[in-house]
Parts: sequence; structure tokens; C-alpha cells
Amino acid sequence: MFFLNFAGLFLDLYELTMAQVYYERELLGKAVFSLFIRNRPRRRPFFLFAGLESFLTLLKRFKFEDSDLEYLESLKLFKKEFLDYLKGFSFKGTIRSIPEGTIFFEGEPICEVEGELISAQLIETLILNTLHIETLIATKALLCVIEAKDKPLFDFSARRTHGISSSLHVARASYLAGFSGTSNVLAGKIWGIPVVGTMAHSFVEIFPTEEEAFKVFAKTYPERTILLIDTYDTLKAAQKVVGLKKFLEEEKIKLKGVRIDSGDLAQLAKKVRKILDEGSLKETQIFLSGSLDEVEIRKLLKKKTPVDGFGVGTRMGVSADSPYFEMGYKLVEYEGKPCFKLSPKKELLPGAKNLYRVWNEENRFLFDLITLREESIDLSSYPKSENLLKSVYQDGKLLYLETLETIRARVKEELKRGYKKRVKISKGINRLFKQLKSKV
Amino acid sequence: MFFLNFAGLFLDLYELTMAQVYYERELLGKAVFSLFIRNRPRRRPFFLFAGLESFLTLLKRFKFEDSDLEYLESLKLFKKEFLDYLKGFSFKGTIRSIPEGTIFFEGEPICEVEGELISAQLIETLILNTLHIETLIATKALLCVIEAKDKPLFDFSARRTHGISSSLHVARASYLAGFSGTSNVLAGKIWGIPVVGTMAHSFVEIFPTEEEAFKVFAKTYPERTILLIDTYDTLKAAQKVVGLKKFLEEEKIKLKGVRIDSGDLAQLAKKVRKILDEGSLKETQIFLSGSLDEVEIRKLLKKKTPVDGFGVGTRMGVSADSPYFEMGYKLVEYEGKPCFKLSPKKELLPGAKNLYRVWNEENRFLFDLITLREESIDLSSYPKSENLLKSVYQDGKLLYLETLETIRARVKEELKRGYKKRVKISKGINRLFKQLKSKV
Repeated sequence: MFFLNFAGLFLDLYELTMAQVYYERELLGKAVFSLFIRNRPRRRPFFLFAGLESFLTLLKRFKFEDSDLEYLESLKLFKKEFLDYLKGFSFKGTIRSIPEGTIFFEGEPICEVEGELISAQLIETLILNTLHIETLIATKALLCVIEAKDKPLFDFSARRTHGISSSLHVARASYLAGFSGTSNVLAGKIWGIPVVGTMAHSFVEIFPTEEEAFKVFAKTYPERTILLIDTYDTLKAAQKVVGLKKFLEEEKIKLKGVRIDSGDLAQLAKKVRKILDEGSLKETQIFLSGSLDEVEIRKLLKKKTPVDGFGVGTRMGVSADSPYFEMGYKLVEYEGKPCFKLSPKKELLPGAKNLYRVWNEENRFLFDLITLREESIDLSSYPKSENLLKSVYQDGKLLYLETLETIRARVKEELKRGYKKRVKISKGINRLFKQLKSKV
Repeated sequence: MFFLNFAGLFLDLYELTMAQVYYERELLGKAVFSLFIRNRPRRRPFFLFAGLESFLTLLKRFKFEDSDLEYLESLKLFKKEFLDYLKGFSFKGTIRSIPEGTIFFEGEPICEVEGELISAQLIETLILNTLHIETLIATKALLCVIEAKDKPLFDFSARRTHGISSSLHVARASYLAGFSGTSNVLAGKIWGIPVVGTMAHSFVEIFPTEEEAFKVFAKTYPERTILLIDTYDTLKAAQKVVGLKKFLEEEKIKLKGVRIDSGDLAQLAKKVRKILDEGSLKETQIFLSGSLDEVEIRKLLKKKTPVDGFGVGTRMGVSADSPYFEMGYKLVEYEGKPCFKLSPKKELLPGAKNLYRVWNEENRFLFDLITLREESIDLSSYPKSENLLKSVYQDGKLLYLETLETIRARVKEELKRGYKKRVKISKGINRLFKQLKSKV
């Protein structure tokens, strides 16, 4: 079902050079790595977790094929014994993760990988890359969903996402966050996401007149005609649409809507609405697109722009105002002993962890509590609490994958809970951190 | 050799809905589409063209398989005849492009696609996506190369690029722009780009002491040891490195360098350089990484930071300060007649075009001239001029692909030519535009 025919070579070289040392020195103990986002950028009140399915699907295919091993041999860095070891490699560890579609905050452990040191180290690039892109986009898309209120949003970003696999991650992550569909046909095939789309400016230009283009298109798609009206002059085109009324009736075509893709969208939409209403096309909807994101959507709605749906492209698809998160994947425990580092601004909480979420009686968010995994915690005085980190992969076996619809439903619930950052760190962690720091 | 096992479904749905109309109405005439970047963002003095090989490689695989057609049928939008047509589809047109590694400016036609209307329309998303990501990254990477002067740069971005295919585009585009290598092993395998990498902080944490970690690593890689020294305390670690001197001599290990990944890099590098020099490790190099881009590199060198190479990650890999370009792919001619549109801020120059570049006697850039393809132009009064748009794909056949080394060499030459935007538009185009505009 997936889209990349790569095997085990998607990694940073240092994972292999380190792994060879571990292999030779028989450093094969159990390690725990923790995945988290270090800082929260401006204009991101929280993060929305996504990418787990994509990651776990690729993880099952993370193997070294003969041609991979030949390539590695050619680097003259690796010994035969180690390459033989890689030949039989597959990830056999355990992964605990918060569910996709969960809101979270900076510094929280959102995924913990436990396994033989080499195993857990070799998947570093894969897990970071996959969870990063979808979490990045799901978070941005959710902001658009919040601002659009109940109006539908559509992912139009395929042409300017960073590569094809990115376009697929974007279509999935935005749908999961609450978008209603995508223009990306490949994503539609892979995940069953509803696909949308009608015509480009080039279509209008092909025909001798705009009316002719509109008529021909409407006849071909009588049940879902949306006409693009900004190729030459938006208002004149809206009048031409009204002029088609008789034709549409005769042909029994229901004109679903018009799309405006440029210009002052708020002003144009108001004028177009008026033209359509006066032309007895009250049910014809107006769709807007062109450089939209949550900020533009908010402005449009604040101006009471008459709009029935948004096509959201590049700015969402590359998370333009914050095109990356400081996501890290760090060793926190080896052979039962907590690990940490003190690199400036990159300090790390030691130890394998749990992440408890606490709600009040009305299911509204109270706070999160990060604890050591072994720490016993009493949250019984709160109406509802839960450890968000759940096993999704155990001893090399996939436990389950949720459907996109399940995840979408979770996101809807999340939005009712009033998230605002309130994260506590347990006494156990604080004590351990001080202890370790004093020893350096 | 490539990395995606997709067929023809990477497209926006509207390309298919339009194509079905063209098919049914027998609108099968010759169309010309032109690819260009609309505006130039701040801090981009020019663009560097890249992505042609990736695009042309994918183009050859752009076909509709049975499962694709079944999926399209399930949408209940397309008639059997059209799906049968898609079954046999492959791109049979002609593509003219400026060479990869060429500097260009906004508004210039950098690629023109000529073919049956349906053919040229269906590849819109593919051509935009592929040329966009590599041009975006090559441009950013070139700025890093310029600022780094002759110091080597390495792509460390794989973990935070937008998806796996993006990481590959980034490795290729940055190498093409003048980077010396990448940490991305898959990119190394695909294109033979030199791969680099040593150790992560987790490696240091595994061992009881930093010294022990350094020793074990050096013994395993005696010829290319680079030690990461910022896990706990950078200056103390540098002193520990000096303390290893006797061990290194006994083991005949040449310590290539140390890497600092956090903190005030300028200040730390100066202090570390002093420690190493005083410890008779004058030949041990210093590599810097951590949130670098062309701006940070310039600052570091301005402060006379002692540095021998840079690891450049996320900020280059997502072109963080400008994560997209306004790249468009627009119909400019159909059946020999020029097309255009007037959408506000998205006006388009009509007609199939040539792009002439003019140099002076010293091979320095004078100006570019955009002309109609049919327009005869006299540039004989200039010492050197050339039409940059050359056929790379003709009637469905790939004419040639350049090696990465050829492209790298071109970029080096480009940097000597003093590019600053000077673009002229021919009289023929201006006349045509006025003519068409007056008719709307």
C-alpha cells in the first residue's frame, strides 16, 4: 500500500558507523530512545501528533538488500561480519507511542523506542523524518480547521510540497486534522481520502470564450460543476455564469459553485455573491483558494466573506511560517541505566518515561505529567487520567493501526477539551536529573 | 535507480477532469506550457535551476497501471473510453529546458513543454513538484556555498526534510550546488554522492566515560576519526581529546577532527582550537554543526572562527527562511495561438518562448532576453550569447542526462559570472501582450 521501494538505507551514515562499533564490542544491551519536540514555534499553541502509520509501515520494510550491502561494502568502512549482521537485520524492538490525532506539547515524550541498542539506533532517521513531517503538517492543518469553523477545507498543495512522498504525508496529515479532501489523486488511492478538483485557468484559455469553456465543463460534469472564474475578469465571469442559467436548466445541470483563485478574495466574493444571488443562483457556492492559511482564513471570515469552502495549498503543505520543528530522538536509558546530555539548549530529561494526561469531570484538559516509567504515581484524586504512551509495536510485531477515520474522530474530540500548555515533571525525574548532573 | 514505485497517479484531480473533456471533445491540438517562478523572495539574489534529472526519470515512469485505473473508475467521474485512453498513456511530447546548475531569475521561462494538450496537462503536478523542490534547495545551498568560501559543507538534513523523497532531492540539490557530501546513505547509493558521518551524542552516553567512547571510536575508524565533543562540556572534552595524544600515537591513529554541535559555536571553536594547538594537535580539524545556514556561516567567518567544515541541516534542507517558491506551469500556446491570463498579480506573458543569455568578453553576465520562440533576434553586436532553452526530451524520448559532476562544474563557472538581475522582454512579446489584452 505504500509508495517507496527503499529498503534499509534511509539513514544517516553515523548510525551505521556507531552500529558497527556496538556490534564489534558486543554492546547489545537494551536501549530506550525518546522522541520529543524541543521548542514550540510562534503561532503554534500546541502540536498534533501524526505519522505513526506511515512510520510503522516503512519500519516493516526497513531491511538491507543485497545491492544495499554491496554499496556499503564499496565505502570501505565496514567489515564483512557487520555487513553479514545487517543482511539479517529487521527491527525487533518495542514502540510505545501516543495515539495519532493527540494534542501534545514541547518536551513531552511522544514516542519511546525500546530494543537492542543497534536496532533502536538504526531507525533514528526514519522515525524522525516520518513523524516530523506529518506532525508538522497536521499541526498547521488543525489551525486552519479551527479558523475555518465548519466550512470545508481541501488540500491543494501537491505541486509545491517538498517531493512526492511529502505530498502524500501532507494529504494524509491534513485529512486527519479535519480537512475534507485533497486534490492529490495518489493519496486518494492509497488512503481513500476524498479527492476533489475541477479546472485550471488553462482550461478556460483553450476555448474561444469563457462561456464556451463553462458550458462544455458543465455538460461533462453535470453533478459537480465548479467553475473557475478569475482567468480574465472575475466579476464579468460571474455575470457570464448567471447568463448560463437557461442553458443549465435546459441541460438539468446543478451548478455546484464557482472558485476564485486570485485578487482581493473578500471583496470579490462579496460582489460575486451579489451577482449570483441577483441572478437567482443562490445555491451556487463560492470556493476560495490562493495563498490561504489559518491567518488568511481568519481575516476572510472576520470580514464576513461569503464563502462555502477553502482550497488550501502551499502555505499549509510546507507549513510555511514554521517549516520544521525541533524534533529529537535521544537515548534516555541503556541497560537499565538512565542517560542524558547537557549540550547547551539541548538538555535532556533522563530515563524511560510515561506521559499521563489528566482531565476534569467535563472531559476538559487539566494537565500533563511526565514521569519515570518505573515511578509510581497517584492520580486517583483526579476524575480521569491516562498514560498516553501505549504499545503499538512489540518485539518486532505490529500490534495495531488505527483507521484514518478513527484518528479524525479523535481530533474532533480533542478540540473540545481546551488545550493550553500545562505540563508537570515528576519528582522522580527532577531528582534523577540533579543526581546525574552532579556526577559529570 | 530511483526511489518511488508510483505510476501515473501523482497528479491533481483537475488534470484528469480537464483531460476527459479534451478527450471527449477531441481537443487534441499541440499545446505549449511554460514553467517559471513568479516572484523572488527576500534573501534570494537569484535562483539555481535543479531537478531536471529527477523529473525526467519519473516522467518515463508516468503511466497508469491497472490498479490506478480501477481506482479512477471507482470515483464514478470517468467514462470507460477515457480510462482506456489512459491505459495506453505515456508522455510523448518535447521538453526544452535550461540546463541544471544554471542561474536564473523570476519571470524567465526555464522549461517549456510541448505536446498534445492532454499529455502536457497531465504532467503539471509532477513537473512542478520535482523542479520546485530541487531548485528551492539548490538555491539555498548555493548561498551557503558562497558564504562558506572554500570550506567544505555537508548535508545533515535527512531527519527533518519533508519526507524521504525530499531528503533525496535535498542531498542531490545541495551536492550539485557545491556541497561536498551528505550524511544520507540512500542518496549516496543512488547518485554516488560522498557520504559522511561519525557519531551521535548517544554514542558518547553509552560508555562509562567520554574518553572511553573516543578511544573505542578512534580504534574502529583510525583513518577518519571525528569526535563529537559537546555531549557534556565542550572545553573539558577538548582537553580529554588532547589527553588521548599518547594513545593515538601508539595506535597510529590520525585524529581527523572534532565536531561541535551546540552552544556559542564561534567562541567554543576559538577555545577548542587553542586547546588543540597547545596540545600539539594542530592538524586536528574543527567541524561545526547545529542550526547553520548561510547567515550563520557568514557570522561565524566574520568572527574569524577557526573552522574546517560545516554540517548544514534543517535550515538548508527545508529552505527554512523561504520554504517555497511561487513556481507556475502555465499554458502559453494552443494550436499555434498564444494564450495568456490576467488574474491579478498572476499575469502571464503569452506565447512559446526563447531565453537568450548574453555575456561580455570576459564571460561575465550582461543580461537575459526573453523573446517569442518565432521572433528573430539580432544579438550579433554582443561578444557571446546563447538560447538557454535546449531540447532534453523529444517526441517522448529522453535526449540526454548530464552527470552530477558536469552540473557541479557548471555551478562553479556560474559563480564567476557576476549575476545580478537584468532581464529584458522582447518587443515581440510586449506587442503580443498588448494586442491580446485589448481583445478581452
